[in-house]
Amino acid sequence: MKVLIVGANGQIGRQFVKLLSEDPHHTPVAMLRSEEQISFFNSLNVESVLVSLEESVQAIAAVMEGFDAVVFTAGSGGSTGADKTLLIDLDGAAKTIEAAQQTGTDRFLMVSAIHADRREQWGNEIAPYYVAKHHADNILRASGLAYTIIRPGALTNDPGSGKIQAGENLEGGPIPREDVAKVLLHALTSEHLHGKTFEVISGEEEIADALKRL
Amino acid sequence: MKVLIVGANGQIGRQFVKLLSEDPHHTPVAMLRSEEQISFFNSLNVESVLVSLEESVQAIAAVMEGFDAVVFTAGSGGSTGADKTLLIDLDGAAKTIEAAQQTGTDRFLMVSAIHADRREQWGNEIAPYYVAKHHADNILRASGLAYTIIRPGALTNDPGSGKIQAGENLEGGPIPREDVAKVLLHALTSEHLHGKTFEVISGEEEIADALKRL
Repeated sequence: MKVLIVGANGQIGRQFVKLLSEDPHHTPVAMLRSEEQISFFNSLNVESVLVSLEESVQAIAAVMEGFDAVVFTAGSGGSTGADKTLLIDLDGAAKTIEAAQQTGTDRFLMVSAIHADRREQWGNEIAPYYVAKHHADNILRASGLAYTIIRPGALTNDPGSGKIQAGENLEGGPIPREDVAKVLLHALTSEHLHGKTFEVISGEEEIADALKRL
Repeated sequence: MKVLIVGANGQIGRQFVKLLSEDPHHTPVAMLRSEEQISFFNSLNVESVLVSLEESVQAIAAVMEGFDAVVFTAGSGGSTGADKTLLIDLDGAAKTIEAAQQTGTDRFLMVSAIHADRREQWGNEIAPYYVAKHHADNILRASGLAYTIIRPGALTNDPGSGKIQAGENLEGGPIPREDVAKVLLHALTSEHLHGKTFEVISGEEEIADALKRL
């Protein structure tokens, strides 16, 4: 599959692009917002396209032509304010979804967050972020695209174990970003996950087996 | 009609509640977030209920039982940050819509903002606010409720003229809050406006006539 990774320069994005680049079945292209981000992807022999999520739907659609799938793993992150959460995590996602609809890019993977549908579990400080993720996910679910929404628990930089727990309603727990990237790779070609939303944390089961039972 | 006004203590809210309280066909109830806001409504002989838009859908639904209509004119305003824009203007609206669905309160008027569907017209500074309004409106349009979305131009505190221009795609222009309140009053019982979204600025036409042609 030819896969456009939106938010490729993020911590999950970089690991996922690297995995894809090592897989002979896939061709990743990194969507980046600035030229300084290109060198990492050049070193992986991965093509890049330059467009910011603050640009128009048309600008995003223009680089999306000819892809089989979009993986959205962009986020404004903790160092910017809630204004960027609105512009990137919510409306950047909405615009990417509209671009996918316009270009007929049917397969769409979204990196969301555990408990994004359970307002009662949103702590005060992180609640604005959850509002954006919750509604971005709802927009995707209403989009008519062949989506899969993946909601990891607390992200860590530990090495991946390749073993997870996956389900619709988990208590919570940590998961290495490396394992989230591996889950994305498995989910990408799993047709039974079209139209599904699931949570994922570190666990006891091989990724392929855990995803099979969803 | 028994009408719940969400954001009753706002500048449009207060004028709208006052208009409703003077109309023998309607009974307004002010939804307020703090006790200090009650005295104004007591002075109008208008009942108040206390619940914050940061509370749960269940808490909002609990005060919404038995109403015929909801008017959402709440906004976090310019003195708070974009975190409150996410929590109030977007998720507060979403929760109010869910509460209306749960309680069977079918009629729903939303005070939105001119150009909320046209990203190319969102200036940088106000763009985060527009993201919230745009997506709140989209949630309402997908809700199945008998909605009307009213998108005023630049709000002023001038006395209302009672004359407006209304349409789906206006250039822009000012409108007194008093006239927005009057538009809400007319729209409330206008069945032909169910399922409609329109923009409104000051103009040459009587409100009733301008709305009739939508």
